Amino acid sequence: MSSYQEKNLEKKKSYLHFGGETAFYQHSSAITQTPMSFSVFVPSGKVENAIVWLSGLTCTEENFITKAGAQQHLAKTKTMIICPDTSPRGLSLPNEHESYDFGSGAGFYLNATTQGYKDHYKMYDYIKKEIYDLLIDFFQVKKVSIMGHSMGGHGALVLGLRQPELFHCVSAFSPITNPSAVPWGKKAFEGYLGGVGSGSDIYDATELVRAGSRSNHTIFVDQGLDDEFLDGQLRVKEFEKICQDSGQALRVRFREGYDHSYYFISTFIREHIEFHLQHLEA
Amino acid sequence: MSSYQEKNLEKKKSYLHFGGETAFYQHSSAITQTPMSFSVFVPSGKVENAIVWLSGLTCTEENFITKAGAQQHLAKTKTMIICPDTSPRGLSLPNEHESYDFGSGAGFYLNATTQGYKDHYKMYDYIKKEIYDLLIDFFQVKKVSIMGHSMGGHGALVLGLRQPELFHCVSAFSPITNPSAVPWGKKAFEGYLGGVGSGSDIYDATELVRAGSRSNHTIFVDQGLDDEFLDGQLRVKEFEKICQDSGQALRVRFREGYDHSYYFISTFIREHIEFHLQHLEA
Repeated sequence: MSSYQEKNLEKKKSYLHFGGETAFYQHSSAITQTPMSFSVFVPSGKVENAIVWLSGLTCTEENFITKAGAQQHLAKTKTMIICPDTSPRGLSLPNEHESYDFGSGAGFYLNATTQGYKDHYKMYDYIKKEIYDLLIDFFQVKKVSIMGHSMGGHGALVLGLRQPELFHCVSAFSPITNPSAVPWGKKAFEGYLGGVGSGSDIYDATELVRAGSRSNHTIFVDQGLDDEFLDGQLRVKEFEKICQDSGQALRVRFREGYDHSYYFISTFIREHIEFHLQHLEA
Repeated sequence: MSSYQEKNLEKKKSYLHFGGETAFYQHSSAITQTPMSFSVFVPSGKVENAIVWLSGLTCTEENFITKAGAQQHLAKTKTMIICPDTSPRGLSLPNEHESYDFGSGAGFYLNATTQGYKDHYKMYDYIKKEIYDLLIDFFQVKKVSIMGHSMGGHGALVLGLRQPELFHCVSAFSPITNPSAVPWGKKAFEGYLGGVGSGSDIYDATELVRAGSRSNHTIFVDQGLDDEFLDGQLRVKEFEKICQDSGQALRVRFREGYDHSYYFISTFIREHIEFHLQHLEA
């Protein structure tokens, strides 16, 4: 029995799409100890690379794959995309389902250490090990990169900065760049780690860059200037300064009039796909 | 007070999108006697034409505008798109909310005559008069065309065949082409009109073409060959034969492996937009 049979990897739905395949999977995660869901788009030809997309608060594996319009830009390439769900599901932990920014739909791409959460909310390891291994072993790709939006932009930055040996390049839309300093991040670090200080060294892109973590390539960030969360939650302008001061190459596109929505993402997803293809298919 | 103030036309949400605007509106409809919702994409330059998109069963004004990826193909043109909701909402008519294929979300683009429904479910007139007038008077376009999917493909064919003076050209994805002969159509005609026979002459594209109704141009239809509804509900192959026999120009693309979903629509929406632009911007 292969390890994918052991994990009950099951393709739940599949659609011919731009000549490739948009599909939805479920598997039993050894890391979260729950069933986990993800979606993929796999071009029809030989696939050699994968982009990991990490979604934001409240999202599932469905939002990006149905709304972003990424598939058309991957259809003729050798690069697939995989979009994991944003948290374990089906549990009943304390305060897990009370708010949009903590618990279900809000896993924050970290390994929880607090009671109850520590047994399941290990989204950092889930992406780094389980999703990564699935890409290499099951989908048989060679190179992997990572991108995400908002909370998922935070995840992409942190995973890319800490694991440059795994994630070849990094981009983000409207990322939470300094979670230790903003309400969404503080709530997550307190609830999952027991205190803000427990997350700042290992799950905060600003602090990681300041301390010397580096992505292999220029990091590409897209940020709408009409994003209501820009100053209070994302702090992309401050992140730009830290990167300049610390020597992490960063290209930020500030987009006049754009907000935090998938309408913003779909407008510029083509440029992000091209950025990843340039590094993955080089 | 303008007629649009009288109708309480209100822009509820608006997003900068591919340089244009994706927006959601609500207004008080004089025809359905309810609030009605629609979405639009309006390119940033001077707009001269509009495509009406009619959605299928269970949809609202949101499905197409968030999933189809049409906006990118309209952004640099003089053509907007408008996507009305598929039925009146907020009522409590007999059997209105019991099934996915009748009542709310299933207005079928006809004028109901049965008790209760006749006062509100007048989607044919709503599209023909109220949406059309809004396009001409409020959005100030000059030419209008129509397209749709499934139940909305039926609506586009019927409105386009009966009102070629209003709808310059017609296309459809997976349309219900002969509602009098299939379960979805029979249920609608019985519930809204009191009998199948009451709909066949005026709301059935196959019967309209047979009786001599004609669109101004070639009708463009896209149909997935893995669509589970093709034989039992849509009957596009039979419609092709009727058009051939009757002299209505029709171009059907049968797509190997594609199904009834928005993944099918988004794959080929570009070709439909190009078809409409070719006629509208000529």
